[in-house]
Amino acid sequence: MLLENLLSERTRLIQSNAIREILKVVSQPGMVSLAGGIPAPESFPLPAIADLERAVMDRYGSLAFQYDLTEGFVPLRDALVGYVARASVSTTSEQVVVTSGSQGALDTLGKILITPGDRVAVEAPTYLGALSAFNPYGPEYVQLATDEEGMVPESLEEQLRHGPIKLVYLVPTFQNPGGRTLTLRRRKEIGRIVAENDLLLVEDDPYRELRYRGDALPAIHSFAPDNVVYLGTFSKVFAPGFRVGFAVAPEVVRRWMVLAKQGTDLHTSTYSQALCAEYLSSGELERHLPEIVEIYRPRRDAMISALEACFPPWMQWSDPDGGMFIWARTDSDLDTLKLYDDAVARKVAFVPGRFFFANPDDGRATMRLNFTMNNPEQITDAVHTLGELLAERE
Amino acid sequence: MLLENLLSERTRLIQSNAIREILKVVSQPGMVSLAGGIPAPESFPLPAIADLERAVMDRYGSLAFQYDLTEGFVPLRDALVGYVARASVSTTSEQVVVTSGSQGALDTLGKILITPGDRVAVEAPTYLGALSAFNPYGPEYVQLATDEEGMVPESLEEQLRHGPIKLVYLVPTFQNPGGRTLTLRRRKEIGRIVAENDLLLVEDDPYRELRYRGDALPAIHSFAPDNVVYLGTFSKVFAPGFRVGFAVAPEVVRRWMVLAKQGTDLHTSTYSQALCAEYLSSGELERHLPEIVEIYRPRRDAMISALEACFPPWMQWSDPDGGMFIWARTDSDLDTLKLYDDAVARKVAFVPGRFFFANPDDGRATMRLNFTMNNPEQITDAVHTLGELLAERE
Repeated sequence: MLLENLLSERTRLIQSNAIREILKVVSQPGMVSLAGGIPAPESFPLPAIADLERAVMDRYGSLAFQYDLTEGFVPLRDALVGYVARASVSTTSEQVVVTSGSQGALDTLGKILITPGDRVAVEAPTYLGALSAFNPYGPEYVQLATDEEGMVPESLEEQLRHGPIKLVYLVPTFQNPGGRTLTLRRRKEIGRIVAENDLLLVEDDPYRELRYRGDALPAIHSFAPDNVVYLGTFSKVFAPGFRVGFAVAPEVVRRWMVLAKQGTDLHTSTYSQALCAEYLSSGELERHLPEIVEIYRPRRDAMISALEACFPPWMQWSDPDGGMFIWARTDSDLDTLKLYDDAVARKVAFVPGRFFFANPDDGRATMRLNFTMNNPEQITDAVHTLGELLAERE
Repeated sequence: MLLENLLSERTRLIQSNAIREILKVVSQPGMVSLAGGIPAPESFPLPAIADLERAVMDRYGSLAFQYDLTEGFVPLRDALVGYVARASVSTTSEQVVVTSGSQGALDTLGKILITPGDRVAVEAPTYLGALSAFNPYGPEYVQLATDEEGMVPESLEEQLRHGPIKLVYLVPTFQNPGGRTLTLRRRKEIGRIVAENDLLLVEDDPYRELRYRGDALPAIHSFAPDNVVYLGTFSKVFAPGFRVGFAVAPEVVRRWMVLAKQGTDLHTSTYSQALCAEYLSSGELERHLPEIVEIYRPRRDAMISALEACFPPWMQWSDPDGGMFIWARTDSDLDTLKLYDDAVARKVAFVPGRFFFANPDDGRATMRLNFTMNNPEQITDAVHTLGELLAERE
């Protein structure tokens, strides 16, 4: 049977995931992987989980295991109002939609917003998962320039002059993959641009709480609440296996998100949501967050020190205040895909940066290095190996 | 801001859910609802859940809380091979994709298969959730006739003469909403038709284990494994709040389902999947299933007795061997939407049947009655009330 013939036109837009193929080697024995984008398992509050489970059973009983509202479990939405206030996002329980991870929010937004051919503005580089969420809906991407201070506001205004933009997608804080944080000045400026131009901005903010130095910045949402969909997740502050994310959205967008999500998965796991609600309302998140930060901070510092010690002077890298990634690049004609093969042969993996660009050619000489999944010694050794391989290329 | 202007063309296809509006009254105090489509909370194996949680923590530790394969948690896919064998579905772990409820499978199948305008064949009546999953992808529905023995195979052959059919969607066992079960003879016949015509059939089988009399029938999948995507769920045999379903699919479909699902939600909750894996492999499902059946069987019997005692002779109803629903209809010019208003005034709710038809006009004189959510006395009283209201319409 030629089932291929049955595939929708849309399916051509779903790219067979090259990064997935490349990263298959990562699970080889002895590999030190700086490629992952996942939290360290030792950051999960496992000892607290049994207590949270008992509390959920006592408080909600069978309701925690039943079908529930598409919008999300009410006690979680209530608790999220206080949680997002930490990011200066002012909202009500009614404006919150719980999603199946941030990915679920991105898919739903793509579904209700993107007509094939619509222009969608993303940073260069941007989060790969957003591209894979939006791709089936047929966007045309326009790339926004980024520098040390994050996305360059003028590049958005420039793109607006070329035609309407359906949505703008940003990870303003400790960006994946760039590691950069949008400055306060630019947050205000971008808020002004989206409000003045009636744009819709998706502010994806998964890493906010993983801050190792400096002060928290307000979300762009706080400067343009009617034009920003704010996304968060429990994947980095609790555990990703629960698959719980959330959106705070303007009313029209919220309403259509709920209707679309009903067709996609009815609702997100009630039990996962109840555990997240209890994690917030019991104060366990507040208690546990500093422990997560103290796991990652020395790993970040070790990677920065190793980069300074081992990488050749013609490489540059970001110096993130938080998150999970450092971004390295060069103006030379380095091809990090070739470097990847050599690195894997020496049991070190990373992600060649091209995968994070809507136009992959723009990322030939870039690489993403994760510092959350290995201890400082492993990180130091792995960066040392990469430094040797880079030096051979001078 | 006119955010409405930003909505995609696709969003016009996502119907603002009329059934949702109608059912809002169901939560009024004192209402006896025969409208729900949900399992009784007393059917959940709550006492076993703490044991399953301990077993998951002991066996998998942090892996149960980490990001995982889009395909699904390997121990669950392994355990599902034996579970689907109960339905005569022969497969391997590699062919199984775990989904976020059956709804997640339906959305993913719609995404990878349906190009706007494609003809999708559904029963009349059919499962509403399938329509809401497929709608955003722009299908044109063709309705397949059903009778006491389930879908009429000749009506599929007839529709094939009018043009190609992208996929056929059936709930062959204890159908929602019709309550009917496709006979063995027709299962074989439909298997033959889809194989001979290179069709893709989605066999949605959520109710199979809720059998109150008679012998289990083999899935259509067993007669045409290369042409059938078999869907199952833990929602009716464990608890719906976990949002775990699964698909057994031909290789091309399986592969694209995984790629599409990666963009939709990365993967289904690892922790929910680990609990389902433990529920299967510990034998707790085998032990608990007869308890669920013994909750529902007397409720089904009470509803059938009450229909026989209280409904006028010009109404007909299905006499299901299992599942959660009885379907009532008449050839008279009854409008069950009007009946609904009167019933709600007397504190009884049901679902007017029009919502289950791709062409709603075909369902004016039909209604769906759920028997899982109330005890036999409540069911008897509610059917009595409906019988009185129907008698007034003679």
